[in-house]
Amino acid sequence: MTTLATTPAHPLVEKHQTVLDEACEALATRSYYSRYPESPSPKIYGENAAAEGLAAYQKHLNAPYAALASQPSDGTEVGSEVSPYGPVLGVRYPRLDLDAALAAAQAAIPAWRDAGARVRAAVCVEIIERINARSFEMANAVMHTSGQPFVMSFQAGGPHAQDRALEAVVAGLVEMERIPASAIWEKPGRDAPLRMQKDYQVVPRGVAMVIGCNTFPTWNGYPGLFASLVTGNPVVVKPHPRAALPLAITVEIARDVLTENGFGAALVQLAAENDGDGLAKTLAERPEIAIIDYTGGPFFGAWLEQHGAASGQLVFTEKAGVNAVVIDSTDNLKGMLGNLAFSFTLYSGQMCTTPQNVYVQAQVPTDEGVLSFDEVADRLGAAVSRLTGDDAKAVELLGATVNPQVRSNASAHATIASEADGRVVLASREIVHPAYPDAVCRAPGLVALDASAEAVYTKEWFGPVAFLIKTASTDASLERLVSTVREHGAMTAAVYSSDETVLAQAREAATAAGVALSENLTSQVFVNQTAAFSDYHGTGANPAANASYTDAAFVANRFRVITSRRHI
Amino acid sequence: MTTLATTPAHPLVEKHQTVLDEACEALATRSYYSRYPESPSPKIYGENAAAEGLAAYQKHLNAPYAALASQPSDGTEVGSEVSPYGPVLGVRYPRLDLDAALAAAQAAIPAWRDAGARVRAAVCVEIIERINARSFEMANAVMHTSGQPFVMSFQAGGPHAQDRALEAVVAGLVEMERIPASAIWEKPGRDAPLRMQKDYQVVPRGVAMVIGCNTFPTWNGYPGLFASLVTGNPVVVKPHPRAALPLAITVEIARDVLTENGFGAALVQLAAENDGDGLAKTLAERPEIAIIDYTGGPFFGAWLEQHGAASGQLVFTEKAGVNAVVIDSTDNLKGMLGNLAFSFTLYSGQMCTTPQNVYVQAQVPTDEGVLSFDEVADRLGAAVSRLTGDDAKAVELLGATVNPQVRSNASAHATIASEADGRVVLASREIVHPAYPDAVCRAPGLVALDASAEAVYTKEWFGPVAFLIKTASTDASLERLVSTVREHGAMTAAVYSSDETVLAQAREAATAAGVALSENLTSQVFVNQTAAFSDYHGTGANPAANASYTDAAFVANRFRVITSRRHI
Repeated sequence: MTTLATTPAHPLVEKHQTVLDEACEALATRSYYSRYPESPSPKIYGENAAAEGLAAYQKHLNAPYAALASQPSDGTEVGSEVSPYGPVLGVRYPRLDLDAALAAAQAAIPAWRDAGARVRAAVCVEIIERINARSFEMANAVMHTSGQPFVMSFQAGGPHAQDRALEAVVAGLVEMERIPASAIWEKPGRDAPLRMQKDYQVVPRGVAMVIGCNTFPTWNGYPGLFASLVTGNPVVVKPHPRAALPLAITVEIARDVLTENGFGAALVQLAAENDGDGLAKTLAERPEIAIIDYTGGPFFGAWLEQHGAASGQLVFTEKAGVNAVVIDSTDNLKGMLGNLAFSFTLYSGQMCTTPQNVYVQAQVPTDEGVLSFDEVADRLGAAVSRLTGDDAKAVELLGATVNPQVRSNASAHATIASEADGRVVLASREIVHPAYPDAVCRAPGLVALDASAEAVYTKEWFGPVAFLIKTASTDASLERLVSTVREHGAMTAAVYSSDETVLAQAREAATAAGVALSENLTSQVFVNQTAAFSDYHGTGANPAANASYTDAAFVANRFRVITSRRHI
Repeated sequence: MTTLATTPAHPLVEKHQTVLDEACEALATRSYYSRYPESPSPKIYGENAAAEGLAAYQKHLNAPYAALASQPSDGTEVGSEVSPYGPVLGVRYPRLDLDAALAAAQAAIPAWRDAGARVRAAVCVEIIERINARSFEMANAVMHTSGQPFVMSFQAGGPHAQDRALEAVVAGLVEMERIPASAIWEKPGRDAPLRMQKDYQVVPRGVAMVIGCNTFPTWNGYPGLFASLVTGNPVVVKPHPRAALPLAITVEIARDVLTENGFGAALVQLAAENDGDGLAKTLAERPEIAIIDYTGGPFFGAWLEQHGAASGQLVFTEKAGVNAVVIDSTDNLKGMLGNLAFSFTLYSGQMCTTPQNVYVQAQVPTDEGVLSFDEVADRLGAAVSRLTGDDAKAVELLGATVNPQVRSNASAHATIASEADGRVVLASREIVHPAYPDAVCRAPGLVALDASAEAVYTKEWFGPVAFLIKTASTDASLERLVSTVREHGAMTAAVYSSDETVLAQAREAATAAGVALSENLTSQVFVNQTAAFSDYHGTGANPAANASYTDAAFVANRFRVITSRRHI
């Protein structure tokens, strides 16, 4: 360590200067910015990219993941992945030797810390660029672990996740670069001024862990991974046991780039496990773990938060919620129905952002006349039916159901309706995948309920389940939105109204509930989608998530500043 | 709420534009900046300021605090303050009606939130300016609650605390102003671009609580108070039962300024209590409380952290630690001894930043020859004796002891030495205050110990107790520094060495320990003092505190951002 912190020259800093500048600018203005093209077009990614990506994916199957052989391991292998489309993946990962891995991670800190913020950011960008180059391989890996349809796997698992990664990198960079490396402090004195030099060193908190989820292993994993890495913390990536491959590919690339640039591969390690091993809890209880990013169920999330508080860990969680839509009125009924039908359908409702509770007043003014609650329900059911009526086309939107809980929810509509005195507007249709006969594919089902059936709709029904909830008025709908989101959380909310006064009230309600609001979405933007650099994902202001992708609070506490001062 | 967020014109924004600009610039460069003069000179504060301030203080005594009569109260009064200098203060505060007060605080949020970041910052500056104008009244209030000597009460309780308040205001302002009020998002599309307007609203988390401490009611209370207030959160100030008056004056001023500017007085409320009421816990358990800032003992601090994690509260704590000094060598022995003696003496060691553990190697090279460990110890004892030898002068540095624990520690030197096989280098001298015969004033005592006596020096001995700890070498001293700070925390660390290699090693050690380092302080800067805008107070990187005055992490999570988006 030198007294005066200087940014070492590093070729990647110059190489990625422009993208870092552009991304910082986009983050400041929150305007449209995407570094990584979302279209899987051969014109963009190359004529052979799709075939090569598929082949690269297939090479992983039924084989050891040899590229991670350099990780400390006890020599045994783990791996439980079965595609929601049917096939067993058979990828075998080296089991991480935790003692050796955590020691190696800590040993890799000083060089990474002392490289400085900009070098770390540039190395992170290089990692993301290399991930982007393998987007087709990644798409297949995401598809066969999450059950997402292919195009969505490509987009959400590839470029969109990569954009979120870049966003986290620059969010961290901006905060770190606010701290000068050094300052001269000169306090006027009676005779002579008191003069001191003060050096400020950005230091990581320790070893970070990212706990991946089954449905969006990369999209939900990258923000925490790159936010921790850019701020100097080594990261142990603990993938969901049924969605390890996308993160294994990520870790492989990160380790390659780090090694090529003279940093320790142990800065990024994969802690794969067999289903049921409970490795996340084991790791969380290790004293070396200083930061945890988690996406998953609320029970374990709450445990992580409390355990973290007791042990000084910084814990970011995204858990569960009851996303809300309020239908007051619309001057574009077809647009509204089509947009909502798509939101329910995409990935069979298995997004943390999929709307669940649609509050509808008794009479809904539309451009096709005033519709009753039941008419709105039926029209929405019809829109979903149309969108998902053709099996071959439907599976390209729906994908496959990811786990038994989703399948159970998908079959629950009749029971719910019967117990809550409701009506099955649309049953969840079983769909046969033309290419994957073992996949369990289900179209969304809708149940109409009275607002009094709170016991049903105040819990999360993950998967192809949505409720149309009849309220006395839009005021009552907004009240329900506020109370349910405050108490049970939500990642998204939407409102449809052709009345500016109601829209203003809806904004007030969203503020009170602490949830972002989409207004009158009737075309190609959907409530379940957020764009990196512009839309925050989550607010941290309701129980669904204590963090937001990507605000300053998501990065500022991942590093600390150590001052040394002396007279000059 | 309007669709397009606009900053309302407010006269205070223009009035305080310059100070906000200057303070933001200082925070960015971390150079010297002080808004509020630390000298209690009549030339600065006015010829009559001292007398008027004393009179204003005396008017509070043995009387109800009438200026807070507008707070919701059940009509009863509380108040337990007894000056560490002897006199009973007899100030009677209205007992806050928590139900009504918390409801009023929440009701005051929307107007304060919608005023926008810059208006809030300007109102906060106005509050601080008005506090500054009452610095002499405050000095007396701080002196007779904390036991600080008068000049220190003026400086640390007045201008220095005010500078820390301003620092918190601009730290919050900078983070909030990074978020644009609105953005146009235009995504290129096949036919036409997708265009949306997105509005970003900064919203508070809820009601904040500041739990004040006995020793630095304003200095440690203001950062949390102003960080929460500027980010839109109402604040309930829960003072230490024996140090309520300084915060009552603060709350009174804040409420006046808020009311004069059309905001709810309930944005700042005082929750005074009688000794033993346990009001902090009662308030922490209220669901309305969303943020807690705490300075105090580690046991309750840990409870707050864990309770907060379970209930979604954001909790900032400063607890306890074992501050460390390493003496390797010096080329200015007299300067070193004088500087350390002053650090031990100031306020009888009752600062969270006072050094406790001085690690000294067996042979210490100095500009007066090589001294043995015992010689260093004796020279340091002699320096303390000289500084505190005259009672009348000594009390102006020492002040009075604040509580029975400090007095007990002050009498423990002989017992410690006997049990730990150490030597009393200097007993803590009892000093008679010429003006306050009932004050318990004690000069620092020093005990020489071997490094093996860990059981003694790994706990905090708050007050006039410091240890000279003999180690085999400076390497061993630095190892002790790292291990004790990592495990038990520290707010400060210092090193004395004339060897650049050792200084570099000390910086490495401070980084490893997560504590700020002062090097070779031999003149008028002391390890127990940090300057707002330049020095961070605490690092958040060791167990002594989970936060730092004032970094981005201290403010960025006190507000959230709620987006509303729509097509245009």
